[in-house]
Amino acid sequence: MMNTNFAPIDLRSDTVTKPTPAMRRAMAEAEVGDDVYSEDPTINRLEARAAEIFGREAAIFVPTGTMGNQIAIRLHTRHGQEVICEARSHVLDWEMAMMAAFSGCQARTVAAPRGILTWQLIQPAIGAKIYYRAQTGLICLENTHNMAGGTVTPLPVFEEIWAGAKAAGLPLHLDGARVFNAAAALGLPVAKLTSGFDTVMFCLSKGLGAPVGSILVGSREAIAEARSVRKALGGGMRQAGILAAAGLIALEEMPARLHEDHSNARLLAEAVAGAPGASIDLEAVQTNIVIFTLDAGDAPGFVAKLKQQGVLASAINPTTVRFVTHYDVDRAACERAAALTVQELKARTV
Amino acid sequence: MMNTNFAPIDLRSDTVTKPTPAMRRAMAEAEVGDDVYSEDPTINRLEARAAEIFGREAAIFVPTGTMGNQIAIRLHTRHGQEVICEARSHVLDWEMAMMAAFSGCQARTVAAPRGILTWQLIQPAIGAKIYYRAQTGLICLENTHNMAGGTVTPLPVFEEIWAGAKAAGLPLHLDGARVFNAAAALGLPVAKLTSGFDTVMFCLSKGLGAPVGSILVGSREAIAEARSVRKALGGGMRQAGILAAAGLIALEEMPARLHEDHSNARLLAEAVAGAPGASIDLEAVQTNIVIFTLDAGDAPGFVAKLKQQGVLASAINPTTVRFVTHYDVDRAACERAAALTVQELKARTV
Amino acid sequence: MMNTNFAPIDLRSDTVTKPTPAMRRAMAEAEVGDDVYSEDPTINRLEARAAEIFGREAAIFVPTGTMGNQIAIRLHTRHGQEVICEARSHVLDWEMAMMAAFSGCQARTVAAPRGILTWQLIQPAIGAKIYYRAQTGLICLENTHNMAGGTVTPLPVFEEIWAGAKAAGLPLHLDGARVFNAAAALGLPVAKLTSGFDTVMFCLSKGLGAPVGSILVGSREAIAEARSVRKALGGGMRQAGILAAAGLIALEEMPARLHEDHSNARLLAEAVAGAPGASIDLEAVQTNIVIFTLDAGDAPGFVAKLKQQGVLASAINPTTVRFVTHYDVDRAACERAAALTVQELKARTV
Amino acid sequence: MMNTNFAPIDLRSDTVTKPTPAMRRAMAEAEVGDDVYSEDPTINRLEARAAEIFGREAAIFVPTGTMGNQIAIRLHTRHGQEVICEARSHVLDWEMAMMAAFSGCQARTVAAPRGILTWQLIQPAIGAKIYYRAQTGLICLENTHNMAGGTVTPLPVFEEIWAGAKAAGLPLHLDGARVFNAAAALGLPVAKLTSGFDTVMFCLSKGLGAPVGSILVGSREAIAEARSVRKALGGGMRQAGILAAAGLIALEEMPARLHEDHSNARLLAEAVAGAPGASIDLEAVQTNIVIFTLDAGDAPGFVAKLKQQGVLASAINPTTVRFVTHYDVDRAACERAAALTVQELKARTV
Repeated sequence: MMNTNFAPIDLRSDTVTKPTPAMRRAMAEAEVGDDVYSEDPTINRLEARAAEIFGREAAIFVPTGTMGNQIAIRLHTRHGQEVICEARSHVLDWEMAMMAAFSGCQARTVAAPRGILTWQLIQPAIGAKIYYRAQTGLICLENTHNMAGGTVTPLPVFEEIWAGAKAAGLPLHLDGARVFNAAAALGLPVAKLTSGFDTVMFCLSKGLGAPVGSILVGSREAIAEARSVRKALGGGMRQAGILAAAGLIALEEMPARLHEDHSNARLLAEAVAGAPGASIDLEAVQTNIVIFTLDAGDAPGFVAKLKQQGVLASAINPTTVRFVTHYDVDRAACERAAALTVQELKARTV
Repeated sequence: MMNTNFAPIDLRSDTVTKPTPAMRRAMAEAEVGDDVYSEDPTINRLEARAAEIFGREAAIFVPTGTMGNQIAIRLHTRHGQEVICEARSHVLDWEMAMMAAFSGCQARTVAAPRGILTWQLIQPAIGAKIYYRAQTGLICLENTHNMAGGTVTPLPVFEEIWAGAKAAGLPLHLDGARVFNAAAALGLPVAKLTSGFDTVMFCLSKGLGAPVGSILVGSREAIAEARSVRKALGGGMRQAGILAAAGLIALEEMPARLHEDHSNARLLAEAVAGAPGASIDLEAVQTNIVIFTLDAGDAPGFVAKLKQQGVLASAINPTTVRFVTHYDVDRAACERAAALTVQELKARTV
Repeated sequence: MMNTNFAPIDLRSDTVTKPTPAMRRAMAEAEVGDDVYSEDPTINRLEARAAEIFGREAAIFVPTGTMGNQIAIRLHTRHGQEVICEARSHVLDWEMAMMAAFSGCQARTVAAPRGILTWQLIQPAIGAKIYYRAQTGLICLENTHNMAGGTVTPLPVFEEIWAGAKAAGLPLHLDGARVFNAAAALGLPVAKLTSGFDTVMFCLSKGLGAPVGSILVGSREAIAEARSVRKALGGGMRQAGILAAAGLIALEEMPARLHEDHSNARLLAEAVAGAPGASIDLEAVQTNIVIFTLDAGDAPGFVAKLKQQGVLASAINPTTVRFVTHYDVDRAACERAAALTVQELKARTV
Repeated sequence: MMNTNFAPIDLRSDTVTKPTPAMRRAMAEAEVGDDVYSEDPTINRLEARAAEIFGREAAIFVPTGTMGNQIAIRLHTRHGQEVICEARSHVLDWEMAMMAAFSGCQARTVAAPRGILTWQLIQPAIGAKIYYRAQTGLICLENTHNMAGGTVTPLPVFEEIWAGAKAAGLPLHLDGARVFNAAAALGLPVAKLTSGFDTVMFCLSKGLGAPVGSILVGSREAIAEARSVRKALGGGMRQAGILAAAGLIALEEMPARLHEDHSNARLLAEAVAGAPGASIDLEAVQTNIVIFTLDAGDAPGFVAKLKQQGVLASAINPTTVRFVTHYDVDRAACERAAALTVQELKARTV
């Protein structure tokens, strides 16, 4: 039976956050215009600010992270090329095969420990320069790496990749859906952590709490072309300043508090580590994601049981459970979720 | 010199409308959830209401009309097929060749007087059933027809097409970006005017005045598949209920006032017809669009001159000017725009 | 009843020609190697000779004209662009929508009298340089124009197009499936007639009589890339020198005799023009194709009747019949076909 | 210095075989017609015979194995789906990313020991039935597996996969470029070894020695659709009976002698195994392919050295060498190649 004394503690994803009162106010008062004509002042302000924060020439607002990533893949490649990416990356597993379906590119996957690709792992995956072999068109990384558990690629690892890709003449895109979490974990500005990528996509709608929206940053030329691809994909919204108003607050105010989500994730992870019947790689819990495996399997059953207790989690495969902490789940809620999780794990091992 | 006593009268498109105070209030107070999990109650309400109004099983909210149309084309076709459409249709001219780039389909265009396709015109364009010829996959119509000047296809013309397509076993999609304008002009409910189409897309963000959004309606099965295609295109927004809140007001309250826009368009059209130096097909002015040709050409120059007077219009090709009336331009503004247009036409013929 | 005293006179297409005894001998004795490794000496000889004849840096052998055209379209464009072509062109009507399905490009069709595009007709079809409009990627012409009846674009018309396209920065491809027929009709070398195109495809297997094969010529760089696209399309054959051996004979010996086919086509055309019940544009009969319309329609029935008399023709649409003359149909056969056609036309008008 | 007393012993691939005198004779005398009209009697005979041998309703001749495989992938899938295949499979590594570029499908790769996929390995790779995840469209296997060294999937392993795929409602395609080698190694008829696949592609031009051509077999319906896709890809050749004449001999006479190539491969493999400086998995040498790794790397240098001795091999990556035995390399040549290889291995370890 569903525990109805509490609103559910929703740890399925940081995408579930609802707009804050300040965001709602901003949306109601947003100055807007037709963004297809580049006349929406709030969109223009958000894009300018994002470009500034990332130290780039330009930025473009898109309705989703998937659109931002797929625009980037389209920009950097031609049909019939290969995109090197990690074997569990979001662009591969959760973007509807659009790399192939829209950009005509084949994924050249490389499995990396904790999802952290290095130049040593990437280099052999580059296609040989033979006329009857598909050529590499792009290297696409992800930081933090969602399916590896929110793991963080450190700056020196990136720096080696930037150098290698440059020498190989290959463009680099960062799926930085949660790059502010990575930056918070490393104590670095996002601009520094991403400076070697040709394009970076980040989400306003995950840890940063905006209701809708992501941003792609890059050179003026790349973003101009992105504007055409966004139109093609059906992302050329009109008075999008409504959404940008919330996005501006997300961008300005939310990064500073991400360490709270990380601390809450650690709390959950340690609770699981201390309980019976589950395996967790504590070192992989570096940001706001907690992934653990049930020794007895049946992740869907486990998740259903937690739901009855008022805790929502994801079964990301038959044996694995994922929690994601975020703005709408505070310390107390996480403590409660941890307790209920441990209780359920214990119940299963009796 | 720009006349600064008045805010510009923006007749470039009905896409420029800004959200009404009621819409802004609704957005600020919208109940939201994560729509990727189908948990946004406002989105769900909007989709249910749209399906009801169109007499369909299901509906899906999309950020733009382009996305709605391209999802429909994808649903009904396979790569390597042909899509029959009018020679100046929006899916052909203003959707970035996505029919080809995303759905791999070739346009089989048919030019129709005033953009109004009939079964007699469509039938010969259907591909012969020969194994080495591309087969027709879809017939795509547009009502009202934008580039033909907002012209309206009457119900009997549609009925003949519905019967013909059914006999030929071919699906039908309606680009009904402005189908509420067509319905208003004909005095028919949209459900009746569109009942024979497999899918219909209509826009909340044009004449209906919402800041962002369109809707695709169809069978439960088609819309379920549309949900996957929308995710692929990057249209799977999270707390999209913010936008749906404005959309609901647009859908409920705005259709009833479209006749005002039509009347204003007529005013403009007649003014142009009575002035020297321009040609206009008055019978084609059936809704909120006014298209006229400058006898002396130089539409861009004419539009620039009007802009200095505070009237914004579009030069849709080197000799042709377009006005679109909408909620943010009232009778008085249209009268003023008409006077300035006539004055400028006269000035050119001296 | 089928007249069995004669082998059928096959005027359906010049693709039906069978290899000559010399070609068969050459194929049996051809020196071959693995062409994927560029080691087939006969292929290499054929490609070098074709490049020489067309005054180009390089050439590549392909199994069909369709493959040659589609490789060219792929080389010159990006997904989401437009290809300007004539409204009845082969790349549009008979290549399975591959412009869209493989290259993701939308056809921007222009109807031209007798299929002969001019710069004046082409220029307005070029996409405006607006970020939310598909851009023109290629202009693709056809000489002779098959569906217009083998009509020939004269050199000065091409020269104006070459100049215009160059000024507009747009590449040009020629579908020259029957360009040797055009050259013969104009009394010009093919090199001169095609010098302004970036790439040219011509067929060894139509009027030139080879059993299989076409060739794409262009710059060294374009043809190197074409080699990759050919591999992708599955055209990277191994000991293809077998086919090239026949192709070399076709290329060296057959162009000089094409005037015979033209003369035979004229014979047929004039017979039809003198008979009742059919309409023919005699001025359009410029090479080896004869197209005429039946006043009473029923082209399929007419073709079936001719077949009973031992004459094979094509019904290219419900009212239109096409004859194509070629090496395997000599003067006497054409005289006989003309007589039978006239007889059948007369029989229908009684 | 190149040893010029002997013609080179070409072990790069079994694609290098040249047509036998009987094949040349058959090609010179082949009865031909226009195969686009299905009127080439030799093609028709070859297709009928292939269908019969594989116990299928229909077959279609294609110029290359790549075209055969890519037609099959196109037939069984829709854009945006996934194709499960082995991590070093030919469709992934050597077909120009066409799975993505033409069929819009994403490869879902599974690494298998010796390239031999089992149902246990395949099953977890099937996409979960979630609307926002790409769905599996096809499972594609390869037997023998080229890059794993010509390894053979035994019948019981296939039978389990056939049952699993059937239960999962998923189509199966076999890249059987060298399926006659697999059948020879297992002592089974190809019909039995492939009966559970929806479509099978096999090559006439590898071990079977024909100059050009492969065949796709399947149901009447699948092959009818394949005919359209072949036309689209530019594979609709005209008097292709020339090639089919050689193909018929390849199909009838060559399978029975493949065991000789296998025995020669074994000879080479054992020689390498007995020499210093190279690692070889002898159990993987099951047919006509021999792959070994150089302990000191520099496969290109090794291959270059062998070439000087008159032995041609492939460096399939920086440390790995491949030999392929075939009809044009007899026992004596293989003995000589083995001796020279051992000599060169020894020279490198001094």
